[in-house]
Amino acid sequence: MENKIIKLFNIKYPIIQAGMIWCSGWELASAASNAGALGLIGSGSMYPDILSHHIKKCKQATNKPFGVNIPLLYPNIDQHIEIILKEKIKIVFTSAGNPATWTKILKKNGVIVVHVVANVNFAKKAEESGVDAIVAEGFEAGGHNGIEELTTLCLVPLIKKQNNLPLIAAGGIGSGSSMLATMALGADAVQIGSRFAASIESSAHMSFKKSITESTGNSTVLTLKELIPVRLIKNKFYEKVLNAYKRHASKEELKILLGKGRAKKGMFEGDLDEGELEIGQVAAQIKNVKPVKQIMSDIIKEFREIQSHIASIKI
Amino acid sequence: MENKIIKLFNIKYPIIQAGMIWCSGWELASAASNAGALGLIGSGSMYPDILSHHIKKCKQATNKPFGVNIPLLYPNIDQHIEIILKEKIKIVFTSAGNPATWTKILKKNGVIVVHVVANVNFAKKAEESGVDAIVAEGFEAGGHNGIEELTTLCLVPLIKKQNNLPLIAAGGIGSGSSMLATMALGADAVQIGSRFAASIESSAHMSFKKSITESTGNSTVLTLKELIPVRLIKNKFYEKVLNAYKRHASKEELKILLGKGRAKKGMFEGDLDEGELEIGQVAAQIKNVKPVKQIMSDIIKEFREIQSHIASIKI
Repeated sequence: MENKIIKLFNIKYPIIQAGMIWCSGWELASAASNAGALGLIGSGSMYPDILSHHIKKCKQATNKPFGVNIPLLYPNIDQHIEIILKEKIKIVFTSAGNPATWTKILKKNGVIVVHVVANVNFAKKAEESGVDAIVAEGFEAGGHNGIEELTTLCLVPLIKKQNNLPLIAAGGIGSGSSMLATMALGADAVQIGSRFAASIESSAHMSFKKSITESTGNSTVLTLKELIPVRLIKNKFYEKVLNAYKRHASKEELKILLGKGRAKKGMFEGDLDEGELEIGQVAAQIKNVKPVKQIMSDIIKEFREIQSHIASIKI
Repeated sequence: MENKIIKLFNIKYPIIQAGMIWCSGWELASAASNAGALGLIGSGSMYPDILSHHIKKCKQATNKPFGVNIPLLYPNIDQHIEIILKEKIKIVFTSAGNPATWTKILKKNGVIVVHVVANVNFAKKAEESGVDAIVAEGFEAGGHNGIEELTTLCLVPLIKKQNNLPLIAAGGIGSGSSMLATMALGADAVQIGSRFAASIESSAHMSFKKSITESTGNSTVLTLKELIPVRLIKNKFYEKVLNAYKRHASKEELKILLGKGRAKKGMFEGDLDEGELEIGQVAAQIKNVKPVKQIMSDIIKEFREIQSHIASIKI
């Protein structure tokens, strides 16, 4: 039986490298695509001209398919879409917004559209909007997150049952075993973020990558739920958030405390105290910064090992 | 290769029926054991004489192994342990407390001891205390829960890597596919709660069972984190909790609002408005109340189907 996601994107492995702010520029996306995954440029942290530059560089660095991730709430979204169409990008992942707004325009221009959801209602909305596939992203994922807090283990089967579209699991996946686990739940493929955020080719600051490899099971938290829930590493900035909660800060005060540019400060500039360090719970399993090619072969190797292990279970 | 949990308990399938307050009396535990799982009597909602009665009835109803779950913070814990030793119970699952306190005494009396944990530190503590196996329970689980909020997908691999003991995954598991998924992560077996809470043999009130089958992906929430975090169905009582948070209620006020006996009121007496309806996120996948035997054969059948599906993946 042909894998729906491999067929849809014409890639070697059913693995998507998540489009992540401050991590996934052309270096990471092209490395992922060259290693047989689908690489995604994360446009959420890019001005339109920067996005344009990354697309051009990515085309030079790989002749394999790659795509762009666009957070739909991004202020420059019109310009981003314009660049994507002009550069003839064929694969777009949309997230954090209403899929109804842009899907038709993209599809009319021959773009394959995938939408990221964290609950069953948005999965339905995405399917109705005409997307080609869905990413089901659970509570354990890094960065911006849904408010229902459904974990990947519980979300994937619900969406699988409701939707007929090709399904990509995300959140908590950084190994061959978790890849196999989510495919057992009904996913056709997986989207991997944190593991690639800590790759050599990630454009994140080395200090941030190091803090990922030093994470433990107690390092991340989903917070700022009054604004947009975000999973991040607990640091001095998070302590300030906790203090704000203690004094019953208003939503407005939290917005001011968060301010602008904290993700860049932490993830790109390496300010581990004052930055917003977005990463998933799976960070606790990441012990070193490796090249993408090595990460991919580790995942595939473990996937095959677990596949044999599962086949050997007699029940 | 022999399954460690099947060997440890001398059972047919690597499935544990979770000991749950107000749900798992002798009827559920004996039905689960008779169907090839390990049945557990949930002593957390029982006075000592009631526990004694349930153990005696369970012995009459099955000649298969069964056990008792004891929350270690339970006020009558001394009497419960006394009954367990007197009745020569051979398997005890402990939870919600320090495993160091009772493990030695139980082990000295030939009892197999399993401890439930939600983080890696407690897993280490449990192993040092001499327990025979560990249950790793994720954020999606119903009822009382850990504060680290690690999901089953992220928790199981961490504990697997750290501990050498037989490992049971819990939280978000109610089907053959999720069973296979967590075994792919390294678990030797699974503990299933919610799916059995909604069985015919569960002693929960029919109205509560019905509310489980009517759950959606947005029905449960982990709340009251200032006291002991608990996952429950959002109802009128939960609205009161939300209102208390809005007016910045103190921990003491929350305790008063919760009061005593709300779990009994909701789960056993069927008061869906004022009761505390403890259940896991997996409830959204449960669409009917079935006999335990049927639930077990559904799970095993699906497990085998997914096993074939996984074997067919060529990567």
